[in-house]
Amino acid sequence: MTRRVAVLGATGLVGQRFVSLLAKHPWFEIALLAGSERGCGRKYGEVVKWVLEEPMPSALGDMVIEKLEPERISKEQVDIVFSALPPEVAVDVEVELAKKGIVVVSNASPMRMEPDTPLLNPEVNADHVEVLELQRRIRNWNGGIVKVPNCTTSILTLSLKPLVDEFGVRRVIVSSMQAISGAGLTGLPAVIIADNLVPFIEGEEEKVQSESIKILGEVSEKGVALNKEIKVSASCHRVNVLEGHTLSVFVELRRSASVSELVEAMKEFKSNKIKNLKLPTAPLNPIIVRNESDRPQPRLDRFEGKGMSVVVGRIRRDEEVGLVKYIVLGHNTIRGAAGNGVLIAELLVAKGLA
Amino acid sequence: MTRRVAVLGATGLVGQRFVSLLAKHPWFEIALLAGSERGCGRKYGEVVKWVLEEPMPSALGDMVIEKLEPERISKEQVDIVFSALPPEVAVDVEVELAKKGIVVVSNASPMRMEPDTPLLNPEVNADHVEVLELQRRIRNWNGGIVKVPNCTTSILTLSLKPLVDEFGVRRVIVSSMQAISGAGLTGLPAVIIADNLVPFIEGEEEKVQSESIKILGEVSEKGVALNKEIKVSASCHRVNVLEGHTLSVFVELRRSASVSELVEAMKEFKSNKIKNLKLPTAPLNPIIVRNESDRPQPRLDRFEGKGMSVVVGRIRRDEEVGLVKYIVLGHNTIRGAAGNGVLIAELLVAKGLA
Amino acid sequence: MTRRVAVLGATGLVGQRFVSLLAKHPWFEIALLAGSERGCGRKYGEVVKWVLEEPMPSALGDMVIEKLEPERISKEQVDIVFSALPPEVAVDVEVELAKKGIVVVSNASPMRMEPDTPLLNPEVNADHVEVLELQRRIRNWNGGIVKVPNCTTSILTLSLKPLVDEFGVRRVIVSSMQAISGAGLTGLPAVIIADNLVPFIEGEEEKVQSESIKILGEVSEKGVALNKEIKVSASCHRVNVLEGHTLSVFVELRRSASVSELVEAMKEFKSNKIKNLKLPTAPLNPIIVRNESDRPQPRLDRFEGKGMSVVVGRIRRDEEVGLVKYIVLGHNTIRGAAGNGVLIAELLVAKGLA
Amino acid sequence: MTRRVAVLGATGLVGQRFVSLLAKHPWFEIALLAGSERGCGRKYGEVVKWVLEEPMPSALGDMVIEKLEPERISKEQVDIVFSALPPEVAVDVEVELAKKGIVVVSNASPMRMEPDTPLLNPEVNADHVEVLELQRRIRNWNGGIVKVPNCTTSILTLSLKPLVDEFGVRRVIVSSMQAISGAGLTGLPAVIIADNLVPFIEGEEEKVQSESIKILGEVSEKGVALNKEIKVSASCHRVNVLEGHTLSVFVELRRSASVSELVEAMKEFKSNKIKNLKLPTAPLNPIIVRNESDRPQPRLDRFEGKGMSVVVGRIRRDEEVGLVKYIVLGHNTIRGAAGNGVLIAELLVAKGLA
Repeated sequence: MTRRVAVLGATGLVGQRFVSLLAKHPWFEIALLAGSERGCGRKYGEVVKWVLEEPMPSALGDMVIEKLEPERISKEQVDIVFSALPPEVAVDVEVELAKKGIVVVSNASPMRMEPDTPLLNPEVNADHVEVLELQRRIRNWNGGIVKVPNCTTSILTLSLKPLVDEFGVRRVIVSSMQAISGAGLTGLPAVIIADNLVPFIEGEEEKVQSESIKILGEVSEKGVALNKEIKVSASCHRVNVLEGHTLSVFVELRRSASVSELVEAMKEFKSNKIKNLKLPTAPLNPIIVRNESDRPQPRLDRFEGKGMSVVVGRIRRDEEVGLVKYIVLGHNTIRGAAGNGVLIAELLVAKGLA
Repeated sequence: MTRRVAVLGATGLVGQRFVSLLAKHPWFEIALLAGSERGCGRKYGEVVKWVLEEPMPSALGDMVIEKLEPERISKEQVDIVFSALPPEVAVDVEVELAKKGIVVVSNASPMRMEPDTPLLNPEVNADHVEVLELQRRIRNWNGGIVKVPNCTTSILTLSLKPLVDEFGVRRVIVSSMQAISGAGLTGLPAVIIADNLVPFIEGEEEKVQSESIKILGEVSEKGVALNKEIKVSASCHRVNVLEGHTLSVFVELRRSASVSELVEAMKEFKSNKIKNLKLPTAPLNPIIVRNESDRPQPRLDRFEGKGMSVVVGRIRRDEEVGLVKYIVLGHNTIRGAAGNGVLIAELLVAKGLA
Repeated sequence: MTRRVAVLGATGLVGQRFVSLLAKHPWFEIALLAGSERGCGRKYGEVVKWVLEEPMPSALGDMVIEKLEPERISKEQVDIVFSALPPEVAVDVEVELAKKGIVVVSNASPMRMEPDTPLLNPEVNADHVEVLELQRRIRNWNGGIVKVPNCTTSILTLSLKPLVDEFGVRRVIVSSMQAISGAGLTGLPAVIIADNLVPFIEGEEEKVQSESIKILGEVSEKGVALNKEIKVSASCHRVNVLEGHTLSVFVELRRSASVSELVEAMKEFKSNKIKNLKLPTAPLNPIIVRNESDRPQPRLDRFEGKGMSVVVGRIRRDEEVGLVKYIVLGHNTIRGAAGNGVLIAELLVAKGLA
Repeated sequence: MTRRVAVLGATGLVGQRFVSLLAKHPWFEIALLAGSERGCGRKYGEVVKWVLEEPMPSALGDMVIEKLEPERISKEQVDIVFSALPPEVAVDVEVELAKKGIVVVSNASPMRMEPDTPLLNPEVNADHVEVLELQRRIRNWNGGIVKVPNCTTSILTLSLKPLVDEFGVRRVIVSSMQAISGAGLTGLPAVIIADNLVPFIEGEEEKVQSESIKILGEVSEKGVALNKEIKVSASCHRVNVLEGHTLSVFVELRRSASVSELVEAMKEFKSNKIKNLKLPTAPLNPIIVRNESDRPQPRLDRFEGKGMSVVVGRIRRDEEVGLVKYIVLGHNTIRGAAGNGVLIAELLVAKGLA
């Protein structure tokens, strides 16, 4: 049942996470690494500027990086392609591959909001995977493109899902404190963030606001319908933390809930859509709730569930303002990107779609 | 018209700011420095662990630190006392001094919410100073105690005031990203905040929520009445920035306003209560509005108006959710503590109250 | 062959490392945790301010912290005591325990330079363990005290040992860039090190200079004799890195060596004194040599050999000045403290001394 | 006596420092700003990513950035050109300008070691300026190129000069802890240096070793002769500090000196070559010696003498090893780059050479 996989954009920061997770994966085997002009034709170990806390998988050091041209990647070679390409080059490449019958699990932002394209956060909306058939039919593709959501959105919606299901959610107001690794390997110069924070991340707030209501939406015959019942407003900020996005979330519920009911709902998370699929990357507890007054903290909690759990803390009610508030933390390049991508691929395999 | 002043808690971080601001002040002259057990009887320059970006004022290096005992401080010696004492020791000392006819401008949290005690953010509520007479009458004091608000609250309320006056404010939802200097000289160990943030600051959210509506309240005959029209909900977080608190603010207005109206209201700030008093520490522009998409940033903007201005950016409307949102930044130990304290003292002098 | 062990000072940063390493140790079982006044009588999980990257061992969360009184610790209860006590309280407690027949492996600095007290960096000088018998005889103890060297010294001497043996070393000039965790849990306030470094660590240079020549010395009948052939001069500095001490080392060799000979000597490390003992905590390669121009780096290399290897890079000869220079990195609280302590205890067990 | 000046590479980090220092300079007036392709034709204020602690000089915000073509810069327009160009583009442009009669003060590394090119650290070797005439004669230039030394070298040689003159210096062994601003605006990504240090800076050690002995050399008829009496060995490291390079220096003197003699020599610095020229940017005390055990520290001391002084501390003798050791700190983009460049230009003006 092993699938041969490729990683596009393998030298970048999300690419490194993909490589790291896939190198030891029970189902997947890296058959191809592709990257930018600069590196192609050279060995991965020589080109990559590895920055992860765990060493580069030694077996991949000698793999030669392939040029990023769809014609060089065939369905005979690879079953699934993981794309960590920058948005401006992603679309063309991904579409070409989908046409050729390959399933692309893509971390790139374009196409995320297309109704016929699954935007998956598996525990939350694994059932959206079924619009892949619509996509294939409409676009006349044999393969397909499945999208990994924006990092902040994945973390947020996972924490929101039990509240949506059990109490109803009317409005969400979220302020993020996002890690520098979210800007990629070279996106953020050290002199900008030293003794500083940057209260702006290009396009991020729009992504959180729109993607959240798609993920929390439902499948209709025209594809995924946005959940118009929920309004999300975001303010996104970059802080000097290496990994782990922390969100300060205020929620207006439709039905009042006590703190213990909220804790319970999150801990139990009954609506978990992949509970029984035994996917290797699925964390035992998608949502971990901590009781300490000062948790979650990125350095201490980001690797919970091997980086796939989100950690919630400080759940409290503000009667005066009529809101519930809490903190949620997730690993931005694992839960928020590559880890979620791998989990999505596992879901596709389990569902017979890849 | 020179006033002799004392600084209590002079070796701490807020104490250092007081010393730094007062050493070069045109109206005030430091006559006495008092501190904890450890330092008293020794020279300030030998005891203080100076951490400010500007050098310790050399003239004060040889001043001997006095023991922190009210009986050692007389009205003959000092006119005004600035207190940067920790809350647990502040009350007793401050009350004793007030009884002796001394005016205490205090940064300590106790008594901030007492109706007869002015909690001043001068541009916002300089008129509250008049409850000092009520305080003197009720408590039978010759001097008095005036409180400097919590740092985050000072920054927040200054940015809110023009909105309250011109459009009306119903709800405020604020997430703070607070500098490590807010924890004082030894309050936060380096190993806690390295590659990390802490989503909790003891008592901070309660202070922001309660003090804001006192500052934005009105004077009645029973003292300051809270502004019950406005609801504030806060989530407070410590980030790895040396100085400068950054707030992500969401506001529900009573009357709709365009972004340009909001910008205008903040830039003009017509309700500035001390505009015409020519106080030396009052910034020319209490609120500076920046147009760049990625400002304010603490390292670049915290010293605007010598640390007394707050800097606002990213003012935007979120139609869907019905909120206005913006970022505001202020220097936590200047605007948020010692600088505000000095400005308050200037107000007291200008009003003939000290 | 299991030994019951105690950790003194278990809530501190080195104490946490001891707890973390011992909780999963194949030979040792934590029977007792002791700590300061504040925590004793309470559960470890409630008292400890855990800051390690891996979670607190859950099995220990409920262990009640014992008061730090030697009379409460008996040979019946524990075989080996690991001491992470501050120097001022360490001596008395450790001596009392040694008198009672317990073997104390101590990270505290007092007694490190006593000729009859083994100061062990096992790969370098495991044979020094034999002075323990001298110690027992002279001091009339049934147990004994074995010392873990200063963190920087452990890292330095491990890298020097092959050079001493194969080429001879005349002078060593070392500048350290030490991690903030070396100052313990509360030793270094965040406001001191933010956007900064501190070019001084109390007592550190003296320790490096004296302990190094003891570790590199030989056993005589009067105990360990210092290696007077080698002169060490150190300059020690604290930098804003969480874990991992990096040393810039200049060495004057007695016999000239090419870079490849130096690399070879370090990689092979033939003089490794514990090579054949199969101690569980001994790293496969005590010295790892990297070829990249920009390694070792603390964040990327500190966990090599589970934190027990030192990583050397940039070995180069400076003909003009007649020196060899290189960079060596080691994990300060593992190789430089708790990990070394555990390795020492394993050595004692293997030698039948504990 | 005003000179019109140009800044090449004005948007970079050293360029920003030049702009900041020149905008308020009593002798110089910025007549032209030139920069890379991307910015030219646009306003400086719109293009520059300003990162300095003080605001961008408002008067320059509207100046249009000129294309970087020597033919666009004439002697009629500008008297002195400050070059903060990257090495690969610097040489051609600078040579063209020198041919046209313009004096170029250049921070770029090429040509620094040419015997006919002054490499100036004015307090140390202002007399080297006289080789400019040799340069003009040999190269047939009307203008000329004067070089600003490498940042670390400027700081090091300023601290060494009094020791060389008064006690003689045989060997210097230096380990640097260099600020991230030394890598320029985009040279160092945030994810590399977070919770980390990098023990390597391309070409830096070679520059320190060679430039130091040129600066400490003497003028002969063939140009500047290297000081072959002094051997320098360097190890250079990047640490997470925004500004301020800290050097750990070990010196082998020719003549023994007590610590107080060393302190005295540095404080007095009798060999200061520009003492009597009253240059506006020359600091009152080029070398400041601090007595505290833990200074200098970059955040606290980097702006001494407006960033033009170096601060020395921890001067100590190591009898055993026969070395003197101390710490020296300097502001890398002021003393080590733009500030030194401006001082050099002042020297040229004072000497009638520009």
